[in-house]
Amino acid sequence: MITLQENPLRVGLQQERTPEPLILTIFGASGDLTQRKLVPALYQLKKERRLPPEITIVGVARRDWSDDYFREQMRQGVEEFGGGIGNEAVWNDFAQGLFYCSGNMDEAASYEKLDTLLSELDGKRGTRGNRVFYLAVSPNFFVPGLRNLGAAGMLKDPIKNRVVIEKPFGKDLGSAKALNRVVQEVCREDQVYRIDHYLGKETVQNILVFRFGNAIFEPLWNRNYVDHIQITVAESVGVEDRAGYYETSGALRDMVQNHLMQLLAITAMDAPNSLDADSIRNEKVKVFQAMHLADTQNLDRSAIRGQYSAGWMKGKPIPGYREEPGVKPGTTTPTFVAMKLMIDNWRWKGVPFYLRTGKRLPKKVSEIAIQFKEVPLLIFQSAAQQTSPNILAMRIQPNEGINLRFEAKMPGPDLRTRTVDMDFSYGSSFGMETADAYNRLLLDCMLGDQTLFTRGDEVEEAWRVVTPALAAWDAPADPATIPQYEAGTWQPTEAEFLINRDGRRWRRL
Amino acid sequence: MITLQENPLRVGLQQERTPEPLILTIFGASGDLTQRKLVPALYQLKKERRLPPEITIVGVARRDWSDDYFREQMRQGVEEFGGGIGNEAVWNDFAQGLFYCSGNMDEAASYEKLDTLLSELDGKRGTRGNRVFYLAVSPNFFVPGLRNLGAAGMLKDPIKNRVVIEKPFGKDLGSAKALNRVVQEVCREDQVYRIDHYLGKETVQNILVFRFGNAIFEPLWNRNYVDHIQITVAESVGVEDRAGYYETSGALRDMVQNHLMQLLAITAMDAPNSLDADSIRNEKVKVFQAMHLADTQNLDRSAIRGQYSAGWMKGKPIPGYREEPGVKPGTTTPTFVAMKLMIDNWRWKGVPFYLRTGKRLPKKVSEIAIQFKEVPLLIFQSAAQQTSPNILAMRIQPNEGINLRFEAKMPGPDLRTRTVDMDFSYGSSFGMETADAYNRLLLDCMLGDQTLFTRGDEVEEAWRVVTPALAAWDAPADPATIPQYEAGTWQPTEAEFLINRDGRRWRRL
Repeated sequence: MITLQENPLRVGLQQERTPEPLILTIFGASGDLTQRKLVPALYQLKKERRLPPEITIVGVARRDWSDDYFREQMRQGVEEFGGGIGNEAVWNDFAQGLFYCSGNMDEAASYEKLDTLLSELDGKRGTRGNRVFYLAVSPNFFVPGLRNLGAAGMLKDPIKNRVVIEKPFGKDLGSAKALNRVVQEVCREDQVYRIDHYLGKETVQNILVFRFGNAIFEPLWNRNYVDHIQITVAESVGVEDRAGYYETSGALRDMVQNHLMQLLAITAMDAPNSLDADSIRNEKVKVFQAMHLADTQNLDRSAIRGQYSAGWMKGKPIPGYREEPGVKPGTTTPTFVAMKLMIDNWRWKGVPFYLRTGKRLPKKVSEIAIQFKEVPLLIFQSAAQQTSPNILAMRIQPNEGINLRFEAKMPGPDLRTRTVDMDFSYGSSFGMETADAYNRLLLDCMLGDQTLFTRGDEVEEAWRVVTPALAAWDAPADPATIPQYEAGTWQPTEAEFLINRDGRRWRRL
Repeated sequence: MITLQENPLRVGLQQERTPEPLILTIFGASGDLTQRKLVPALYQLKKERRLPPEITIVGVARRDWSDDYFREQMRQGVEEFGGGIGNEAVWNDFAQGLFYCSGNMDEAASYEKLDTLLSELDGKRGTRGNRVFYLAVSPNFFVPGLRNLGAAGMLKDPIKNRVVIEKPFGKDLGSAKALNRVVQEVCREDQVYRIDHYLGKETVQNILVFRFGNAIFEPLWNRNYVDHIQITVAESVGVEDRAGYYETSGALRDMVQNHLMQLLAITAMDAPNSLDADSIRNEKVKVFQAMHLADTQNLDRSAIRGQYSAGWMKGKPIPGYREEPGVKPGTTTPTFVAMKLMIDNWRWKGVPFYLRTGKRLPKKVSEIAIQFKEVPLLIFQSAAQQTSPNILAMRIQPNEGINLRFEAKMPGPDLRTRTVDMDFSYGSSFGMETADAYNRLLLDCMLGDQTLFTRGDEVEEAWRVVTPALAAWDAPADPATIPQYEAGTWQPTEAEFLINRDGRRWRRL
C-alpha cells in the first residue's frame, strides 16, 4: 500500500493537498518565531482550508503558561504579524486545537510528560499518532532535543514521527557532521526536515519551472553560452537587535552557507529525473560536490569579507557595525561577503559564479543574474557605443519575476541598437501575492514532502565549500585589516577588485 | 577615394545620414502612390532635415499640368495623407524644388525633353547630375521606361544614376527573368532599387537586430530546437476598388511571392558577415535556393488557395469576393493562400514553415511565430492539463514587438505551471511611432543603400519557389472547386487540414 507519506511526489501532483490529522509540537513556543511566523502561517493555512479539522498544535517552552494564555499569545501574533483573525468561528475552531506544555528541553521528564499529553490528545482529537516535532529553538538545544525525543521513543515510527530542525544546522563542517550523527542515531533521514526558509519562497520552485518547464533555456544554460552568473542577496537593515547571535555567526554562516548556496545549487544543477525530494536533492548534492572557491591558494581572490562603517541611508545617520549595541568594538565578524566559486563539471567548467550578500546595502534586493557571452560578431552599432551582452535576471525580491535584457533596433532610418528589457512579474501576472515561506514549509513537512528541506549530505557539502573562508576568517585578525564599506553603499572596494580583476563588474541593482 | 555611393555600409553607420544633392524623377506623378505616399514621405524627410537643401523632385505624367498645379496637388497629398504642412516656410522651400514635366513613357521624345529639364535644373539647383528615376507606374510601363531611359543615356553613369522599380516585379518567373534582362541591358545591378515596401518597415531590421545583435537566440534558431514556424499576414479589408488589378494578381502574387517570402528569408537566413547590401542579399538568396513546397507531388499538401464568401464583420454584411464590383462572377483568383514550405539546409531540414495570408480575415495582423519543440521530459503538471511549447512571436502589426511565451509556476503551495508571456513593444519602449516604410526606402535609395531592396536573383528565386502553385492555379478551373471562407473568418477548412494533418494548428491571433 502506498501511503501519503511514502509517496510525496504523487501528493504533490494533487490539485489540493491536505495533510493527515496530526499533532505539531513546537519547542520554543514562547519565542518570536512561533508567535510571529509559525502560528500565523498555520492559521493562514487553516483559513485556506488546507489543514485537516483534527489539526492540533502543542507549544512547549519553559515558562509556566496555561493553554488559554498560550492561545491568547498566539492570537496576538496572528493579529499583529499574520493576516488577521478574520472569521471568529474559524479562530475558535483553530484555538481549540492549541495546547501548551511547559517543559525543559534538557530534562527527560519533560518528554515523558509531553508524550503523555500527546497520547491523550491523540485520543481526544483523532490525530492517529501522527506527530511532527518542530525545534524552533536555539541551536544548542538541537542535540538534547533530538536525543531526548529519541530516548523517549517519540521518533521511533519512521512514517508517523517527523522532526523539523530550524537553522542554523551547525556552525561549520565539523559541527554539522556531529549534528547529523545525532540525527542518524535517533531517526531516519526521511523523518528529518532541515529548514532553510529561502527554499520555502516561491523562488526556488519558480526557478525549477523556468529551467525545466521550458525547452528554450536549458540549451543555453551551460559554459558554451554563459559568461558568468551573479547572485546577490542584499539587505538594507543592519544587525538590529540580533547582535548577540550575529557576532557568533556573521554573513558567511548567516546567509552564504545556506541561502546563497541553495540559490546557487538550484540555478546550477542538472535536470532532475522527477520532482521527488531525493531526485532534486541528489542533483543539488552533485553540484555542491563539484563546487569550490575559485582560487584555493589565495583566499582574497575567492572570498572577501567586509563590515559596514557609519554612513547615511534615506537621510538618516547609520552607525557602523562596530558601534552597534552588543557588538565588540574590535570585532572581525563579517556583515558582507563576496565570493567567486567555480563548478568543475561538464556544464560549468570555467564559468565563475560571483556571490555577494551584506547588511546595510542600499536596498533590500535579491536576484540571480545569468550573463551570457557576447555575440561572436558585432555587425550593428550600439547606441551606447558599447556592447551589451544578454542578461537573464531572476528577481527574488522585491517584485519576484524574470527579466530578459536584449538588444533591439532603435526606431528610425539609422540601424542602431539599444538595450531593452522584456519583463515578467509573478505578482502582476497572477494578481496575487506569493505566500510566506513558512506556510509552504509547514504544509510540506506535514504532508511528508522533503523537497524543500535540505538533506544531511547537502548541508555538509555546503559547509565544505565555504570552509576555507570560514577557517581563515574565524582566526584572530587585526581589526584594521577587515575591509569596510560605508552603510548605504554596495560593497567594499576589495569586493570590486574580486570581480573587476576578471574584466567583469557587479550588476547595478 | 570612397564616395558615399560606393560605401553604403559606412554611410549606414553614421549618426545621421543625408543624401547628396540630387533630382528625384517620379514617373506616374499624377497617380495615387505619388500623392499619398511618395511626396508625403519626402516632405516628412524634409521636415526631419534628412534631405539636402538642393533636393529637387520632378513629376512626370501624361497630363498637362503646370509646376504650380503639381505643387498644389502634392500639398493636398501632404495635408490629407501625410503628417501635415507644419511650418509654411519649410513647405515653401520644399515646393520650390518641385517641378512637373508632362510626357509619355512610350515616347523617346518625352525623355529628351525630360533630360533637358534635368540638366537645366542641375544648373539651377546644384544637383550635380545625381539622378534617381522612380517608376511609380503600372508594370507594363517598366520595360518601355527602362529602355527609353537607357536609350536616352540617362542611366549611363553607374554612380550618379539610379532607378527605382515599384512592385510587382514580374508576374511569374518568366516575366521576372525577362524584366531582369532589360534591367541588365540598360544599367548595372547596383543602380537598381526594386521596391518591396515590406522591407522598408522597421520589422525587417528589427528581426535582423533581434537575431544577430543577441547571442542567446541564434543557438536555438535551428532544427534542433524549432518545431515549426508560422508566418501570418492578415488583412481585414477586401479587394476594395482594386478589383481590376487584383483579378490579374491574387494573393499569391500580391502578397506571398514578395512580402511573405521576404519575411521568411529574413527569419530563416544564416548570419551575414556584415550589414552591407550584398552580404544580406546573398544570405537571402541562399535560403531561397534551398526552399521548396513541402510536397511537390501533391500540391494540396503544400498550398491551399481560397476566396472570401459573403459574411459579417463588425456587425456589417460583407459581400463575397465574387460579388465585388469588377470581379468576374466565376473567378478563380485567390484572396487567401496558405502554404507549407521546407528549407533543405543544415539549419532547417525537416522544419516546416507555414505561411498564410488573406483578405477579409478577422483582423489586420502580421506576425512571425517560432514554435519551439516541447520539453523532452515533463516533470511538472500544467494547469491547462496540456503541454505548452515555448513560442517566440515577432509581431509586425499592430503594435510591433516581441513576445515570448513560456511556462511559469502558479503561485501557491502546489507545483503547477501556467503559460505566461514576456512582452516587449517597440512603441511603448521607445515612445515613438515607427516611420512609414516609404520614408525609409526613399532615403535609402537616395543614399545609395540597396540593403532593403530586392536583388534580381532574389526576385527570381522567390518566383521559382511559388511557381508550382502559380502554374496550377493559373490553369482554368471549375469555380466550384475553389475553397471558400466566410468573410470575417480565419481560413478555409482546407487550410486547417494543411497544418492539422501534421498534428499542428494555426495560431489564434
